[in-house]
Amino acid sequence: MRTEATTATDRIVVIGATGVVGREAIGLLERLGIPALRVLAAASERSAGQRVPYSGSWLGLESGARVDFTGASLVLLCADADTSRRLAPRALAAGATVIDNSSAFRMDPDVPLVVPEVNGQSLIAGAGGMIANPNCSTVILLVAIEALRREFGVDAIDVATYQAVSGAGAAGIDELLDQTRAVVRGEQPRPRAFHESCAFNLFSHDSPVEPVSGINGEERKIIEESRRILGRPDLSVTPTCVRVPVLRAHTQAITVTLGDWADEAQVRAAYERHGRECGVVVLDDRASNRFPTPLRASGGDAVLVGRIRPDPGEHRKDRPGVERRRWCLLACGDQLRKGAALNAIQIAQQIGLLPGKEPIGRDRTA
Amino acid sequence: MRTEATTATDRIVVIGATGVVGREAIGLLERLGIPALRVLAAASERSAGQRVPYSGSWLGLESGARVDFTGASLVLLCADADTSRRLAPRALAAGATVIDNSSAFRMDPDVPLVVPEVNGQSLIAGAGGMIANPNCSTVILLVAIEALRREFGVDAIDVATYQAVSGAGAAGIDELLDQTRAVVRGEQPRPRAFHESCAFNLFSHDSPVEPVSGINGEERKIIEESRRILGRPDLSVTPTCVRVPVLRAHTQAITVTLGDWADEAQVRAAYERHGRECGVVVLDDRASNRFPTPLRASGGDAVLVGRIRPDPGEHRKDRPGVERRRWCLLACGDQLRKGAALNAIQIAQQIGLLPGKEPIGRDRTA
Repeated sequence: MRTEATTATDRIVVIGATGVVGREAIGLLERLGIPALRVLAAASERSAGQRVPYSGSWLGLESGARVDFTGASLVLLCADADTSRRLAPRALAAGATVIDNSSAFRMDPDVPLVVPEVNGQSLIAGAGGMIANPNCSTVILLVAIEALRREFGVDAIDVATYQAVSGAGAAGIDELLDQTRAVVRGEQPRPRAFHESCAFNLFSHDSPVEPVSGINGEERKIIEESRRILGRPDLSVTPTCVRVPVLRAHTQAITVTLGDWADEAQVRAAYERHGRECGVVVLDDRASNRFPTPLRASGGDAVLVGRIRPDPGEHRKDRPGVERRRWCLLACGDQLRKGAALNAIQIAQQIGLLPGKEPIGRDRTA
Repeated sequence: MRTEATTATDRIVVIGATGVVGREAIGLLERLGIPALRVLAAASERSAGQRVPYSGSWLGLESGARVDFTGASLVLLCADADTSRRLAPRALAAGATVIDNSSAFRMDPDVPLVVPEVNGQSLIAGAGGMIANPNCSTVILLVAIEALRREFGVDAIDVATYQAVSGAGAAGIDELLDQTRAVVRGEQPRPRAFHESCAFNLFSHDSPVEPVSGINGEERKIIEESRRILGRPDLSVTPTCVRVPVLRAHTQAITVTLGDWADEAQVRAAYERHGRECGVVVLDDRASNRFPTPLRASGGDAVLVGRIRPDPGEHRKDRPGVERRRWCLLACGDQLRKGAALNAIQIAQQIGLLPGKEPIGRDRTA
């Protein structure tokens, strides 16, 4: 039996509403003042019938597999790639715009892959259809360097990641907390969610490793998605992805090779000029050793950038002076927020499906 | 009152015997079968009179400030730089060979800075005098790439570190455990040993940051010590040093630019040929996603190396085919063992002050 509320038009459907990304999406819709009657929250069959808090009221959870997309203007897919592949055709057939957080359609040439600050101009207002949200590490990386790309261009990116366990969802968070409690009790926990122990340990990212190239799945996403979003199929990208015992927010040690030479004043001016519009907050206090950390980035909209410095290893034989092409940065971003749900909401704002002349995520200072 | 034992000749003095590095040094002397009567363990004034276990017996702790170096053949300085500066002249005046684990003398042109596998040939057997042990991150980095350097040379090193809290001594370990217990109890711990919270967090390394270059102390050590040890004053070194919530063993994401082009078979052959002699164990199982981790490296002698792969970002326009100059690695080493105490012991073995035709640290498989 469907209630009147679920048959209203102009509805926003969140699939995977009980997952770590879905919960963030619901919270952001709440922040935007979207009335509860417009939001349809769906999750797995076993969650159906439960409810989640929303703006002082509640949203009842429907079964994602049985959602009727009639009347939906926007569908946010916040579940896994299989769920996206299964539900996207139905949502599109019902006329909804679908924004997919999974990897299912990211490399489909017919589906725009969008970070609004970077290639949002590729979206036509009210375009509709399917839009893919990039991998969390790709979003954080490209946002962190966007101010520099606008001013100087980018020729190469080296990045080592320090990725939180929540990238693997709630199971990753539970695993780290459970294992940590066990270790401080003097026990030897057995890994469940990950293939390695995560308490007081770190490990090469838990995505499959390509047998020939030696690149893992997360690194492959960073390479191919960055090239696609920047429209540079031959961009040099050198990622190493590592999972660390942090609950939330990914950190990245980035060395970016600019297209042009720049000195430090020019680099900092680029962040001053474009940082706010790019959703970046610079936190770079050498005197007090205060820089981006995952705790500082967690729960925030901004990508924090600091440790901005010229690469001390860059050879200067052909270019004396203080200008450099290689610059080092340390960036932290909440991968559930800007790395996932917030980016999806901003895409919807950009095409006019959600309110916000000043999109959320651009007015926060850390 | 000095006992007969403490006036024997050919003694080995360990200064800082209660610290995290000193305890490792004592354990390694035990492993080498050095009799307790030859070992004089010294620590701070407040530890004097206490004792530490050794080979089924005990070593009484003397006050480091009041140690009589007469009859000492070898002094292992395992305390801070100030202590080294204070005690080294007295130890040298007494005729001892001094191996210093602190940063006090590392850049002194009259003091050899040695990783035995890399530049051990610079030591003359029985040379005596003062020898400096490099920073732990430098040792692990240079050991990890030594097999490649021998075969192909090295032109540049990019490294992002994931450094354990024990790099800051026992206080770092206590801080991480105490803070973690507090967080899982739902409390908000206040940082003490570090300038940032370390439980479920990470932060740019806690050494001071140079105001102009933006490089921190740990990164500066990696740059200058690597150049000195490799005899390459203009070597391109690009480090980013980060502290992670791991108790022991440092991890490094390394991209090394070789002097010559190499394909993957040649790179792997280099590790097969030189790995054991370099104290490296390759752990590189793409199919099972099994690579070096800090837990796997902790308490071991070897530097573990894995994720060996060509840099996918290297431009090949001028060089088609499978050869590359840039190679990516993930390395883990116990920074208290090979990064400190073991390296010092191996230096002493190399100059004949400690037994071991087959030096310890070269026969272990992970």
